[in-house]
Amino acid sequence: MAAPSDESSSDPNEAIMRATYRALCEYGYAELTIQRIADEYGKSTAAIHYHYDTKEDLLAAFLDYVLDRFKDAVHEVETTDSEQRLRALLDKLLVDPEDHRDLLVAMLEMRSQAPYNERFRERFRENDEYVCYLLRTVIEQGIANGVFTDVDADHAARALMTIVDGARTRAVVFDDEAALTTARRTAAEYVSNVLVADGQ
Amino acid sequence: MAAPSDESSSDPNEAIMRATYRALCEYGYAELTIQRIADEYGKSTAAIHYHYDTKEDLLAAFLDYVLDRFKDAVHEVETTDSEQRLRALLDKLLVDPEDHRDLLVAMLEMRSQAPYNERFRERFRENDEYVCYLLRTVIEQGIANGVFTDVDADHAARALMTIVDGARTRAVVFDDEAALTTARRTAAEYVSNVLVADGQ
Repeated sequence: MAAPSDESSSDPNEAIMRATYRALCEYGYAELTIQRIADEYGKSTAAIHYHYDTKEDLLAAFLDYVLDRFKDAVHEVETTDSEQRLRALLDKLLVDPEDHRDLLVAMLEMRSQAPYNERFRERFRENDEYVCYLLRTVIEQGIANGVFTDVDADHAARALMTIVDGARTRAVVFDDEAALTTARRTAAEYVSNVLVADGQ
Repeated sequence: MAAPSDESSSDPNEAIMRATYRALCEYGYAELTIQRIADEYGKSTAAIHYHYDTKEDLLAAFLDYVLDRFKDAVHEVETTDSEQRLRALLDKLLVDPEDHRDLLVAMLEMRSQAPYNERFRERFRENDEYVCYLLRTVIEQGIANGVFTDVDADHAARALMTIVDGARTRAVVFDDEAALTTARRTAAEYVSNVLVADGQ
């Protein structure tokens, strides 16, 4: 359902988030301005400032929006088989870079600012804790039903996220789409050789 | 041997690189200026510009300097045992964050600029190719002498660098020293369970 583009839209926030996404992909974080977001939104900067005082407020909200989109994507994973569910989660985390490369570029710029920006850092931590919780839960389920060996589920979740974050960084820094393919294979090796009970 | 601090120093470049290191650690990449580097150097900005036309020239040279320092550190690894040598290389790559955290912060900022800065991107690629070559060579040696199973050595090297880069990113973004400990453990699990011949 395409949102109407006037200010009485039932969800102006969704339209602003989509405009922010497009502006971030086009200009990157360092060159992002409220004017450029407003241009993508098709309205004045005042229409943005009505909802967000500063660019930082808007970007903090955007990081929440990205997490919500990820949560929606995760809910599409319907299997209850632990190993299949874990592999499906990893697929969601290591999506085709062609669709998301520009967003990965902008996200790495924002991630690199986390040491200087507490609100960004809090969002990135919260996102990571949520994803680690999802991974840990499915690993614990797999241990309980004998699919996985009795590993430290918290460590295994962080190990897999280390692979995911490495892939995201490498895809951007080296402009290398193969970085995500390498990471999918590495994560699969970790699951098969470290986690799966008959892999030992 | 401490270099004298006058311009007739036998190695002004080394002194400028050290000043750049300190300025990067103190101010980060975004706030770095030639003035701040000159202040650390204890000389005028002209003394810097005598060697480097622009801040970007200086930072490209700094990335070469960091790689050279890493090469020196790697040469300290003296064992010829493949598994021990691989573990020693990984230790060098996943060093104690306390010593290097500020540098990791500045390096992630520079890495995030790679899509916009070809010279940075070239350096990061060159560094990565060098380290992947080292890892691949020791893995190939281990396969040849039967310590490691007959894995795809090129993939295994990239898999390990994915873990290393994930750790570097996570240590900075989450301000979490444990990220490097997690990565050391993950890399060790990969070596033991995927590479080592009797680990299967």
